[in-house]
Amino acid sequence: MKKTRLVLYMKNILINGDMSAKAFHNLDVFLKKEIENGVKIFVLMDKNTRQHCLPYVLKQCPELKKATDYFITAPGEAYKNLETVVSIWNALSAENATRNSIFINLGGGVICDMGAFAASTFKRGMRFIQIPTTLLAMADAAIGGKTAIDFNNLKNQIGTFAEAEKVIIDEHFLQTLPENELRSGFAEIIKMAIVKGPKEFDLLRNQTYKEISDWQPWIEMAVSEKEKIVQKDLTEKNIRKRLNLGHTFGHAFESLALERELPLTHGEAVAMGLVCDAYLSVKYEHITSRRQKRIEDYILQQFPYFKISAADTMTMLFRMRQDKKNKADAVRSTLITPKEILFDVEIPDTDIVDTLAYYRALAVS
Amino acid sequence: MKKTRLVLYMKNILINGDMSAKAFHNLDVFLKKEIENGVKIFVLMDKNTRQHCLPYVLKQCPELKKATDYFITAPGEAYKNLETVVSIWNALSAENATRNSIFINLGGGVICDMGAFAASTFKRGMRFIQIPTTLLAMADAAIGGKTAIDFNNLKNQIGTFAEAEKVIIDEHFLQTLPENELRSGFAEIIKMAIVKGPKEFDLLRNQTYKEISDWQPWIEMAVSEKEKIVQKDLTEKNIRKRLNLGHTFGHAFESLALERELPLTHGEAVAMGLVCDAYLSVKYEHITSRRQKRIEDYILQQFPYFKISAADTMTMLFRMRQDKKNKADAVRSTLITPKEILFDVEIPDTDIVDTLAYYRALAVS
Repeated sequence: MKKTRLVLYMKNILINGDMSAKAFHNLDVFLKKEIENGVKIFVLMDKNTRQHCLPYVLKQCPELKKATDYFITAPGEAYKNLETVVSIWNALSAENATRNSIFINLGGGVICDMGAFAASTFKRGMRFIQIPTTLLAMADAAIGGKTAIDFNNLKNQIGTFAEAEKVIIDEHFLQTLPENELRSGFAEIIKMAIVKGPKEFDLLRNQTYKEISDWQPWIEMAVSEKEKIVQKDLTEKNIRKRLNLGHTFGHAFESLALERELPLTHGEAVAMGLVCDAYLSVKYEHITSRRQKRIEDYILQQFPYFKISAADTMTMLFRMRQDKKNKADAVRSTLITPKEILFDVEIPDTDIVDTLAYYRALAVS
Repeated sequence: MKKTRLVLYMKNILINGDMSAKAFHNLDVFLKKEIENGVKIFVLMDKNTRQHCLPYVLKQCPELKKATDYFITAPGEAYKNLETVVSIWNALSAENATRNSIFINLGGGVICDMGAFAASTFKRGMRFIQIPTTLLAMADAAIGGKTAIDFNNLKNQIGTFAEAEKVIIDEHFLQTLPENELRSGFAEIIKMAIVKGPKEFDLLRNQTYKEISDWQPWIEMAVSEKEKIVQKDLTEKNIRKRLNLGHTFGHAFESLALERELPLTHGEAVAMGLVCDAYLSVKYEHITSRRQKRIEDYILQQFPYFKISAADTMTMLFRMRQDKKNKADAVRSTLITPKEILFDVEIPDTDIVDTLAYYRALAVS
């Protein structure tokens, strides 16, 4: 039998490394007590997690059957919007939810981001628990207190900072995750390995995501590195901006794809963003082109290249100007150096255009 | 010439006690530097404050003329809703506002609450400044980081906790404030005096609100007492709940009036709520009926009695069950004791009904 690797990061993140279901047992005991005290429980999920994840959760955590209500949304980024949040607020009002009620998000990044936003603004913030079901949500979205919805086709335009009371992470859900979802989460793990340093990245690049059978060590690496940073800077005033590596360009790729209705996962967009940031890091003479090539090759070996036109370059520049990480009007991005990730680096428009030209040239190389 | 009484509470609340306009001068210097650094400024106001307050502000703080945009809403609680916030988010998106842009709220409680909510959720929180123009907003709404909008006829149902970068308080605006608005703010000052203790209340009850010509000492009392409590408990987990004195019943009066489209200001509702809490405090043997009568008489001498029917009693009980301060289903309220304000006290439905019966009987006494 595999050794139990239940890890308790901080006091509120439970990672369930084997099939012993300790994290869910902990949740079950916790909910039992709360329900006995008259606390109402609400669960948000989408149709996919209802079908594929809820049965397992109810088996591991039978108390959840006593939830006051289940809210089920259509799946996908297109529903991560204000309309869905309004329907959640309406239902919570109708059920007399209070600040002391508990809102549980069972799903991927969309459910975790949006559910946490709805909970964090209902009566100025009710309690909430994250149960991420995708690699992306386990390694990133459900950790660190960022909540959000999309608005006017702009990703995460509206949101808050609010910390979950608990995060329950169970590898079990990864068994049935579609391959492109697994790869999407893998981009955040690559990012965290680069943020942690060259040693971690070299350890990671020994294998492709398809070769990884035990995800737990990599999830733990990403979660612990992220928590370390977030505890020092929840509201992203300084060092948390390191975690935006790949995301300035990444969000621009993502907005473009959303607008064109092209399929591009968050992770695929971030992976392309990492390629761009690596190029800029060489251009600004922070890393060698050898290191850049290692990052670029590793990423393009596993992620599909997302093709853009010359005209798209200008659309992306416009999107980046609207990016929430920019002070005043200058686009700011992150750069890789041998020792750390630089953040808030002003990138002149000409260098954005040059980077995207380099990126476009990769299509024919 | 009156002595300058510019008071700096914490580092961010400026109170302008005379006509020397030091607080606005401070703002002017501050904005000049920000604008020079490329920071965009946005100003929210309603049609009333645009007409009555903006000219004075622009005279005291000419830099504000360089604001990127002014958002002007219709006045009144009816517009403190999601639709208005959506239009603000749209305008901010269109103007490429960033987290580092500054959102200035010029107005009463509605503008300060709603503008702060819009700002605190745009890109997970942009910078904002409060310029309260009513006594209520100066003494209460603009201080302490509560943001909110109404939702489904439920007051402040959706909101966040977010602290303003600066609060500029200038008595000048009180000169043109309608009498019922002045009285509305006075209810919060009475509440704060009761919270501070019997001595403060006895000092206050030497005069009616009509007899007060210099408001500054009372605004300072309310602001400093509130700040002292909020700094210890921003998100209202414990002692901040003392400030809810009069508000459990108060919000129920207010919701009732909103539903019936009867005119009742927030302060008038809180004043009636204070009468109810004082009665409960005697019923639970915390204060003498002599002290209760002093509070009741002082309030009813200055505030119009708000008449309710026996049927309204049940409607109010239902509203109170939905109040965000309740854990599980029990209604919890605040009680006055000789030494402090008790909070989170469970009030059985029978005592709510009894209190409202007592309140109804005051109509004929």
